[in-house]
Amino acid sequence: MIVKNIKPMNLEIIDIEKLDQMEGKEISIKGAIHRLRILPNVTFCILRLERTLIQVVAEQQYDLSAFLEGDFVEVTGLVRASKLNDKAILNKNYEISLTKINLIHRPKEVPPFEINKKELNIKPDLEFDMRQISLRHPKKRAIFKISETIANSFASFLETNNFTRIFSPKIVFAGAEGGANIFKIQYFDRVAYLAQSPQFYKQYGVGIFGKVYDIGPVFRAEKHNTTRHVNEYISLDFEMGFISSFEDIMALETAYLKFMIEQLKEKNNFELELLEITLPEITDSIPSIKLKEAHEIFFKIQKIDYRNEPDLSPDEEKFLTQWSKKEYNSEFLFVTHFPTNKRPFYTMDDPSNPGETLSFDLLFRGLEITTGGQRIHDYDMQYNKLISFGMNPEDFESFLTLHKYGVPPHGGLAIGLERLTARICNIENIKEASMYPRDINRITP
Amino acid sequence: MIVKNIKPMNLEIIDIEKLDQMEGKEISIKGAIHRLRILPNVTFCILRLERTLIQVVAEQQYDLSAFLEGDFVEVTGLVRASKLNDKAILNKNYEISLTKINLIHRPKEVPPFEINKKELNIKPDLEFDMRQISLRHPKKRAIFKISETIANSFASFLETNNFTRIFSPKIVFAGAEGGANIFKIQYFDRVAYLAQSPQFYKQYGVGIFGKVYDIGPVFRAEKHNTTRHVNEYISLDFEMGFISSFEDIMALETAYLKFMIEQLKEKNNFELELLEITLPEITDSIPSIKLKEAHEIFFKIQKIDYRNEPDLSPDEEKFLTQWSKKEYNSEFLFVTHFPTNKRPFYTMDDPSNPGETLSFDLLFRGLEITTGGQRIHDYDMQYNKLISFGMNPEDFESFLTLHKYGVPPHGGLAIGLERLTARICNIENIKEASMYPRDINRITP
Repeated sequence: MIVKNIKPMNLEIIDIEKLDQMEGKEISIKGAIHRLRILPNVTFCILRLERTLIQVVAEQQYDLSAFLEGDFVEVTGLVRASKLNDKAILNKNYEISLTKINLIHRPKEVPPFEINKKELNIKPDLEFDMRQISLRHPKKRAIFKISETIANSFASFLETNNFTRIFSPKIVFAGAEGGANIFKIQYFDRVAYLAQSPQFYKQYGVGIFGKVYDIGPVFRAEKHNTTRHVNEYISLDFEMGFISSFEDIMALETAYLKFMIEQLKEKNNFELELLEITLPEITDSIPSIKLKEAHEIFFKIQKIDYRNEPDLSPDEEKFLTQWSKKEYNSEFLFVTHFPTNKRPFYTMDDPSNPGETLSFDLLFRGLEITTGGQRIHDYDMQYNKLISFGMNPEDFESFLTLHKYGVPPHGGLAIGLERLTARICNIENIKEASMYPRDINRITP
Repeated sequence: MIVKNIKPMNLEIIDIEKLDQMEGKEISIKGAIHRLRILPNVTFCILRLERTLIQVVAEQQYDLSAFLEGDFVEVTGLVRASKLNDKAILNKNYEISLTKINLIHRPKEVPPFEINKKELNIKPDLEFDMRQISLRHPKKRAIFKISETIANSFASFLETNNFTRIFSPKIVFAGAEGGANIFKIQYFDRVAYLAQSPQFYKQYGVGIFGKVYDIGPVFRAEKHNTTRHVNEYISLDFEMGFISSFEDIMALETAYLKFMIEQLKEKNNFELELLEITLPEITDSIPSIKLKEAHEIFFKIQKIDYRNEPDLSPDEEKFLTQWSKKEYNSEFLFVTHFPTNKRPFYTMDDPSNPGETLSFDLLFRGLEITTGGQRIHDYDMQYNKLISFGMNPEDFESFLTLHKYGVPPHGGLAIGLERLTARICNIENIKEASMYPRDINRITP
């Protein structure tokens, strides 16, 4: 009998940012041939690595005419100084002088568009139809290295603050957000739903762990196909108990955003330069105004009257962050106290003004990226609010179980990862910040 | 107009493990009254905090008779030395001598079971029906602090190894794993499916980022209701390019498991003691045998003949890790080379024996916790395998796009978080390692 021993493997990783420490040394790297330019005396071969491009130079004695763009190869060569100005290349001060090249695998066909141009510049339909290939473009994939840091810094910030990670179920018996925008599932012999949010489970989590966070997909069956919506997105959610005010939630989000921006500076310098991103700054605080005041400001300056509207309009969202940038040097703006009838049934009303809720949105660069607030923790209050919303408390027996057996005062928020990523990257259409966007017309690839 | 400035908040966290540094000082903590024992001369009040219990002692002059178990309170008191032997209490060497107690919130009702006993000991149906409350039991929630570390260490291990995190969509146009166990969704005017695995998207990710990981829910419409299955679970997935053998995947998993065990020791000492967990050890390596050999061993020792079976039976899984523990001092065992017809269509066949695949399972304490292997990267090979499986390549056009335009040799694995957690905690039923298990009869809470 043959028993093999599988020993733990540590990956050998060549840190491309530290090529200076390897000058004159021979290294081997694997990647795809991104660009190949064969000149009479020299061949320039730009390799596409996991995150960056690197320049390989083959002198006359090396014949690369048998290679094609798209080939997966292993290149061996000497690290030497250079001076390159392609932002997609890292490290720009070094290149590889080729000594050997092996073909690992050749694709069957050449894609119907060029992923090696500075900009992809193809029609959105083609870009999304072939997303599994178009994301190989350096500028496209860079968006998701930004998105990764946003998500991972959410997790590490909350972990440091003693939050517990939960995994809320996505197959649910009822929607947390109400309304018709919920997907139905055939669940064996019955109907179930896809979770619109982890709301109930976060609130349960407060009773179990005190402070919880959840990073996962949520689903909204919204029929409108806009640049601000996708039907499946990643929600960065947290919920915390024993708050003294709903402003605690806003203050914690402010701290997270500061941390996230620092993490982007630390980890994503390459992508920030490639995508020419100017990060927002939070010097001291984020300004916060009530919805009513937001409407007033818009009316006063823009002369358009939304003062009786229960929510912000898209043009107000755009205007208001320009206003806060100008007046308070903040690209972020909290808007608070949305009316009771515009916020979900679990939202706490303001005791000093019951027509308004202890809730907030966070606007950033013209878009709402967060919804949050204090939740109802008292059983009678929650029961009565369901009634006043015309809902049947019996349908929410499972949810009310929480309030019946007790939960401390609590609140939380949800950040849309794609929305935040899009605004950080100054992308207009949030679908570009979703790896495989789902909308009313698209569920492929 | 009132503009508030929301300043970043840092949570004040009292590190209960470091009460020794606070001896004699007055601290305030918020929590639930877990146990209240009022004696003539003294009152013992065990508070349930976010992760642990703590003992609060109220001397005669403090009357706690108005308080009830379950109340959410703020306690102020002096830290003083003590000697406690309840494993759910941390820190056992200190208690709080009460100077003040405030009621924050009183629940409407008392739960129909006691969560303050050493063991919960209620019927599984009741436990799962009221999961949002029963998880407050110290031993129940401890399982999920273990689970959290398993998941987070997967992420941090892979991040350190330059893997990129992806978020694969859960609404999909086709199943990756084939078969009938897929849930249907009504997606506007058409039918879509819930992802059985992130397989396709991981493989796309190899072409984009080289090495990717994904932590998220997957869905299996399996009708059997066993202790080894749930219909929604968390899959820890990775996929890596430019592998030289499918054993690279196994070697990387071995390194992850070693790291994960170290992280549990570092972060979860409290839960390990409370749940009386003996962690597995990976001293040097994990033994690996072929499926055929696994059947032979079982036949030779147990005299039951599964030698013509294409998969391991549950009794073989149980037996084999006992065998490897005895023979190789390893509670983990890799089993490799499953037959072609038992593995999905994307699995690479062994070129030296095309009836077998370059695939593996990892068994741990009697249960398969991982499936992995090398995938097909060549277009013609994948196309022909679909045909030979009786599948229509046109249905997989989107997947074959990957192979058409090229992907390097690659492989990966999926670890079931609930299964791994259950086996680490020595829990027989994996539903206990799922916060809100979904099975054929249950989608609440």
